[in-house]
Amino acid sequence: MAYNFEFYAPTKVIFGKNTEDEIGKQAKAFGASSVLVVYGGGSAKRSGLLEKVEASLSAQSIAFRELGGIVPNPRLDKVREGIRMGKEHNVDFLLAVGGGSAIDTAKAIAYGLAEPEYDVWELFAHTRTARKCLPVASVLTIAAAGSETSRGCVITNEHTGEKRVYDDNLARPRFTVMNPEYTKTLPDYQTESGCVDIMMHTMERYFTNGGNMEITDALAEGLLRTVMKNAVKLHHQPGNYEARSEIMWAGSLAHNDLTGCGNDGGDFMSHKLEHELGGMFDVTHGAGLAAIWPSWARYVCRECLPRFVRYARNVMGIAIAGTDEEIAEAGIRAMEDFYHSIGMPVNLDELGVHPTGRQIEEMAERCMAACGNHTGSAKKLTLEDMIHIYTNAAKSR
Amino acid sequence: MAYNFEFYAPTKVIFGKNTEDEIGKQAKAFGASSVLVVYGGGSAKRSGLLEKVEASLSAQSIAFRELGGIVPNPRLDKVREGIRMGKEHNVDFLLAVGGGSAIDTAKAIAYGLAEPEYDVWELFAHTRTARKCLPVASVLTIAAAGSETSRGCVITNEHTGEKRVYDDNLARPRFTVMNPEYTKTLPDYQTESGCVDIMMHTMERYFTNGGNMEITDALAEGLLRTVMKNAVKLHHQPGNYEARSEIMWAGSLAHNDLTGCGNDGGDFMSHKLEHELGGMFDVTHGAGLAAIWPSWARYVCRECLPRFVRYARNVMGIAIAGTDEEIAEAGIRAMEDFYHSIGMPVNLDELGVHPTGRQIEEMAERCMAACGNHTGSAKKLTLEDMIHIYTNAAKSR
Repeated sequence: MAYNFEFYAPTKVIFGKNTEDEIGKQAKAFGASSVLVVYGGGSAKRSGLLEKVEASLSAQSIAFRELGGIVPNPRLDKVREGIRMGKEHNVDFLLAVGGGSAIDTAKAIAYGLAEPEYDVWELFAHTRTARKCLPVASVLTIAAAGSETSRGCVITNEHTGEKRVYDDNLARPRFTVMNPEYTKTLPDYQTESGCVDIMMHTMERYFTNGGNMEITDALAEGLLRTVMKNAVKLHHQPGNYEARSEIMWAGSLAHNDLTGCGNDGGDFMSHKLEHELGGMFDVTHGAGLAAIWPSWARYVCRECLPRFVRYARNVMGIAIAGTDEEIAEAGIRAMEDFYHSIGMPVNLDELGVHPTGRQIEEMAERCMAACGNHTGSAKKLTLEDMIHIYTNAAKSR
Repeated sequence: MAYNFEFYAPTKVIFGKNTEDEIGKQAKAFGASSVLVVYGGGSAKRSGLLEKVEASLSAQSIAFRELGGIVPNPRLDKVREGIRMGKEHNVDFLLAVGGGSAIDTAKAIAYGLAEPEYDVWELFAHTRTARKCLPVASVLTIAAAGSETSRGCVITNEHTGEKRVYDDNLARPRFTVMNPEYTKTLPDYQTESGCVDIMMHTMERYFTNGGNMEITDALAEGLLRTVMKNAVKLHHQPGNYEARSEIMWAGSLAHNDLTGCGNDGGDFMSHKLEHELGGMFDVTHGAGLAAIWPSWARYVCRECLPRFVRYARNVMGIAIAGTDEEIAEAGIRAMEDFYHSIGMPVNLDELGVHPTGRQIEEMAERCMAACGNHTGSAKKLTLEDMIHIYTNAAKSR
């Protein structure tokens, strides 16, 4: 039985080689006249991409300022700095150059500039709903977060250690330029973490106890199989352009809501549990997800067994006979083998994180507070459940 | 090897039961103040849908006028009538209630009203490019054409018998309201023709000689398998809401370009050959496609063999050993069996159309003229090729 749904993914995607030459033209078409260019570390400079982007803007007589230095698990202070700059220079358009951290920072700045009378963190604390947002676009260089087409935005308050998400269609990027060539400079660990993150965006929507459509499942399963195949290919041939194209486009489709149409909103507890890890230990998001998922999956699978069996059969290719529990477990084990095959961890020890009992309790408490009423669909988790999942993840396999 | 691509599917989809109550609110959000409601025959009236739509507009203080009587293979004269009405009543928004014919008529009127200084048929004659288009939206009641999310628009000039397409993102609908309940009143033959049309939109993008992405193929194959399964289900249980949901959503995804990302633009010759049939004999579009496709497929498959083999394996489930030619032929035969299983024709005789040799030549000549340089990807067709395909389709199986 499918639920009613809305699907709205208006982002214009310009995909392929040399597409960065289009940026100025697209920004102009979408109404930009004063742009804040938000980027991360030096790689956008070293690769020459930033220079190309800015030349492309200048060619259309679009003014711009730079805000660099965005880090993974992007920080609230940087958002505030961007809002100050934006006010000062009458910025009317945000252009992120990078991955999810740059895009999410740009989205948060866009919210802040559109309603400057409020503190932007109120959105992430869920004490306020946005009514406006400046237009955002991106030049994507990391295939992972899916923020280039999603309504999501994740910011970490470095003063409190809270990593929080705010979701609204207002922040869906107007366009995204995606040239897979630029993902080649990423360290392999980042590429592989990205593949995990992409799969998890669709898996979060897949493991639910309500509202599954056959067409949505068919698309999700096809996407997951394609990502797995190409992740392994990239592990051995990081320079393979075709494989990078497959992963990059899958990353956008995995999180633009296509793979959740008709469901109940998805589970998303692996993400929320990982957010607390990220807030406390600053781990790479995708690797953190890989380290949490097997523990989550084993803990909840009895309450969502038909979906775990379907996953084992249709995604992991498990062909053995057995009870549903055995087939589900074989699927989870195959997923761990896949993670290992691309150099990803399957528990916290392999991730290099060793939380104390007190730290686990603290993460679980924070997770519970961040969740509100949304504590999962495969299984609605209690505080104790969360502690168990972290604790099991902390044991070696 | 994938080609560069643009993907832009901004239509907001509101899907499920009772979603028609949203129409006024959505129209207002998208800026409507004076709406022309475009619909077909009496079913929109009989079902009470039209009344609901208009009440929903009135509740938001949106003015509206009605233009009814749109027929399948919608006519240019009706478009001109709509343009006259639109000018008279300062219409600023087009709302189609119905299927592809109503939506395409609304799109054509929207072009005509946005640039009233030109004759709208110039677009379809490809002697002019549109620069503007009024906003269009739809309340969909037939799962088939995919026009609710596509950039396409097909109009028949009843004075010349020309059925012509004009494609532009300008006409992509702003939103579409899709309640599968309203498709239940369709005659079975229309439902089944719709399923063929939906599959063909993705098959036209699948059978190409260039630019295939694994992720695109995976989505296309999953979509096709889902439509086949649910088409058979609906053939036996026309009132099945879940099956209608699957088909309806697949219809939008099959033609919003998702299943063509990275390809060379697709083949689309079955559609173009059928357009001439539709122009000359006024057949139901999907049934016409079913009657043409096997002849087209057998004629071109040697020049696009890897795709036909892949199709046989991954969509039709052909598991036999054999030469590539044998596997491809088994796939085509299985497709014919599927068409028959849902009451669809596989040649012109079964369609009830018996063109003379001169009529076949005339259709081929018109098709050639309409194609310009785009005469296919699986195989670029000549005039003689087209005559052969029509002639073979005219022979019984």
